[in-house]
Amino acid sequence: MSDKRAVVLLSGGLDSATTLAIARDEGFSSYCLSFEYGQRHSTEVQFATKVASHLGATEHRIARIDIGAFGGSALTDMSIEVPVNETGESDEIPVTYVPARNTVLLSYALGWAEVIGASDIFIGVNAVDYSGYPDCRPEFIEAFETMANLATKVGVEGDKISIRTPLIMLKKEEILKLGTSLGVDYSLTVSCYQLSKEGESCGVCDSCRIRKAGFSAAGMQDPTQYQ
Amino acid sequence: MSDKRAVVLLSGGLDSATTLAIARDEGFSSYCLSFEYGQRHSTEVQFATKVASHLGATEHRIARIDIGAFGGSALTDMSIEVPVNETGESDEIPVTYVPARNTVLLSYALGWAEVIGASDIFIGVNAVDYSGYPDCRPEFIEAFETMANLATKVGVEGDKISIRTPLIMLKKEEILKLGTSLGVDYSLTVSCYQLSKEGESCGVCDSCRIRKAGFSAAGMQDPTQYQ
Repeated sequence: MSDKRAVVLLSGGLDSATTLAIARDEGFSSYCLSFEYGQRHSTEVQFATKVASHLGATEHRIARIDIGAFGGSALTDMSIEVPVNETGESDEIPVTYVPARNTVLLSYALGWAEVIGASDIFIGVNAVDYSGYPDCRPEFIEAFETMANLATKVGVEGDKISIRTPLIMLKKEEILKLGTSLGVDYSLTVSCYQLSKEGESCGVCDSCRIRKAGFSAAGMQDPTQYQ
Repeated sequence: MSDKRAVVLLSGGLDSATTLAIARDEGFSSYCLSFEYGQRHSTEVQFATKVASHLGATEHRIARIDIGAFGGSALTDMSIEVPVNETGESDEIPVTYVPARNTVLLSYALGWAEVIGASDIFIGVNAVDYSGYPDCRPEFIEAFETMANLATKVGVEGDKISIRTPLIMLKKEEILKLGTSLGVDYSLTVSCYQLSKEGESCGVCDSCRIRKAGFSAAGMQDPTQYQ
């Protein structure tokens, strides 16, 4: 087992699976962290567990958090309808945006990184497909890293914690090709915002549409089970 | 009710009670947020509820989070003993430090602030008594604020979220005098790291010692119930 440790945020989606494969390729021992936060599609955590096992994670923990308690997003608040034709091209912030989500998830990762002595935190954010989400932008990630190094023992004592976003400027088809070259089995991943309990994807939500288009652009077979 | 909204982190301790009183004095409608995170002294949340009511909070929510799941602190990890004579004068980071705690708590506050449209987040951190905690320092708070304004819709759309730390450079006796002038009833607050289920304080842990010394230095009667 490598001495280089990384915390990898793992959602069960294709971006975070690819990110885990990249961390493994760089020789990190990967400590994967998933969340149950009142999301509509908690089935995704079961996919995350399969992905962690498939890609040789050292450990996989699931934290139950109350992020949905405040409402304000179609993904956690049942009173807001998930849009089926939301464009990814507008400058507006989508209603599927979860307030401060990446801030909360990275904060947990930071706590675990400190306890296990991990130098790197990997998160599969992407500024191309999710241009409307403020917390997917490079400038947010840089500011979080600066804060993280002031927040922790590690930062104070001289080592540095790096927030790693290897996918941030990649198109979906580039992510899929990269992951495939690193051995990712995308049939173990899901993207759907309204996944059924049986793990079937709707095929019409924004996230499904981006996924389908990515496989198509990459010239790859889409292994997703659609309803 | 005021249109100026603030999220106030409320622990049940004397610092956060004073902070809430300051937010009220500034005319904020206060949305108080407490956490149950596997701390040894979950009884403190009951004190927080009394304080919120006493100081006229608009709303009080309690989020249950898994911050203790990673271990690494005497306050959440039952295998590390709470020290009874830890000095506040050393430059070392105390074992009662919870990894990334203030980062996680502020991240939740940020999410709620965004949902309710709060411009200010109040946290009762103090760099004097807790000089060993990296996440109680002004440079951490400034870095968090910068990050917060990049992380959120609010920041992107032009308004600014401020992280307010009115106690950060005050001595305990100064905090007590200020809070008393603003009507805080300190008998409703607790500080003990190992509070009993009945709400009695040990009187010997680091936090109790700082509290006792503060009342003494302020020339005030200490209303705490010690065992």
